[in-house]
Amino acid sequence: MLYLVGLGLSDETDITVRGLEVVKRASRVYLEAYTSILLVDQSVLESYYGRPVVVADREMVESNSDEILRDAQTEDVAFLVVGDPFGATTHTDLVLRARELGIPVQTVPNASIMSGIGATGLQLYNFGQTVSMVFFLDNWRPASFYDRIRENRSIGLHTLVLLDIKVKEQSLENMARGRKIYEPPRYMTVGQCAQQMLEIEEEKKEGVYGPDSLAIGAARVGSKTEKFAAGTLKQLCEADHILGGPLHSLVLLGNRAHELERDYAREFALDKNSWDNVWAANYSKA
Amino acid sequence: MLYLVGLGLSDETDITVRGLEVVKRASRVYLEAYTSILLVDQSVLESYYGRPVVVADREMVESNSDEILRDAQTEDVAFLVVGDPFGATTHTDLVLRARELGIPVQTVPNASIMSGIGATGLQLYNFGQTVSMVFFLDNWRPASFYDRIRENRSIGLHTLVLLDIKVKEQSLENMARGRKIYEPPRYMTVGQCAQQMLEIEEEKKEGVYGPDSLAIGAARVGSKTEKFAAGTLKQLCEADHILGGPLHSLVLLGNRAHELERDYAREFALDKNSWDNVWAANYSKA
Repeated sequence: MLYLVGLGLSDETDITVRGLEVVKRASRVYLEAYTSILLVDQSVLESYYGRPVVVADREMVESNSDEILRDAQTEDVAFLVVGDPFGATTHTDLVLRARELGIPVQTVPNASIMSGIGATGLQLYNFGQTVSMVFFLDNWRPASFYDRIRENRSIGLHTLVLLDIKVKEQSLENMARGRKIYEPPRYMTVGQCAQQMLEIEEEKKEGVYGPDSLAIGAARVGSKTEKFAAGTLKQLCEADHILGGPLHSLVLLGNRAHELERDYAREFALDKNSWDNVWAANYSKA
Repeated sequence: MLYLVGLGLSDETDITVRGLEVVKRASRVYLEAYTSILLVDQSVLESYYGRPVVVADREMVESNSDEILRDAQTEDVAFLVVGDPFGATTHTDLVLRARELGIPVQTVPNASIMSGIGATGLQLYNFGQTVSMVFFLDNWRPASFYDRIRENRSIGLHTLVLLDIKVKEQSLENMARGRKIYEPPRYMTVGQCAQQMLEIEEEKKEGVYGPDSLAIGAARVGSKTEKFAAGTLKQLCEADHILGGPLHSLVLLGNRAHELERDYAREFALDKNSWDNVWAANYSKA
């Protein structure tokens, strides 16, 4: 059996009791570690589980999945995924390959940022499609998120923006020379995301949102140190020191927002007067 | 401290390790039991936790929250919610009241149907807003879901439909006579949902969807007995015997669906030929 086990959002104790049982009895345990991260290291997981864990990078999962699935017709293999196995990304290919090999698959669900973001006080019913934001390069500024946000906003809905993480990246020079030396990991902050969003709006000038659009920055959702900052995109460009360390996410508010959402999130406002004023001007229900 | 603890989707072992620690050490433990249910009884939870659990019905949570919050300034109170505490419904009011009383609040997230539905193979990125479907009565057929689905479909997105549950309902006669006798619980099936959707389309005739629109019915998502059935709404009207017992949910597909979603969900098709044909005719990407 292949078990896809969600680890939740924060630390080693966020695994479910059922998930922990699977990990303890599996023949081999893999940790998918390139689409998201826990706030604790692999070594903490290993000592908590009392067994070794193989870190599976993108290359291994995409090109060497048969090694992960080896003998899983008769043995139990646990494939651990931060968040929910079908959350921010899916491992559809791995399951399709398992099916081809006649390997049964079972999922152990867990918290995902896609539902955890409800801790902002924004109603999950009012969210449209989720988008991703990648680190811009000088000559590469993918902006497909802009059209998706337009679609969501056209029907009044919030947009969850998931922020890029870069782990195990090589510099161009190291890549060219074939040196397996990796850069330190980088995690996009709410400030960087808000900045990039405003850059694209300035470029496109289609008024999908602007510096005074309301948003909520979220850090370490679901952990004991989770932190939120609510304000305009302009304010959020400068709020990283309040949010603290990774992982960050951002929600751009839709205009169909409800008073209860306003009142709940006001607690997190960087400037409560500004929050009240912008809300009254642009987000009161029709 | 008030702890909002998610229980996940299926049985007593779906609680997280952190959540279980909170339950074991809290002064009092409440179970919110009117917006969703686990697949096991309260007594199973009580014996698993080794302590009593107070079932909190809607009346208690909405009208008597101060009893739940009693002394939580200095003691730990655990409020258990099936799924994620901020998942299908939110307990915003309870948290706002706790804030007024100076009670700190911490959330222990867990799996929600809103991310667990990814087990259908449909990409969570391609979902629009979630809607709810209630049991129709002769003179009460609320159809606001119809306009929400139209919005989602206008931008090509899937719609998750959450299905009504009726627990602790009184008959009109018992209510009139003030008898606290409750009807057996009722859980809407995928078949009932598909039927009601088609009734509303027939009434409105705006072509938001129709008998040949593709959908996936889901039963007991996240449990060992989870089951999916993919087909047209017409086919799903008659597929309850394949899906089995509660809880059910339904996803109506959007036209922006991806080939990988088609291939993954094909495994669940009630009629693979029909699935392939309808997909090719109406769901191939532009």
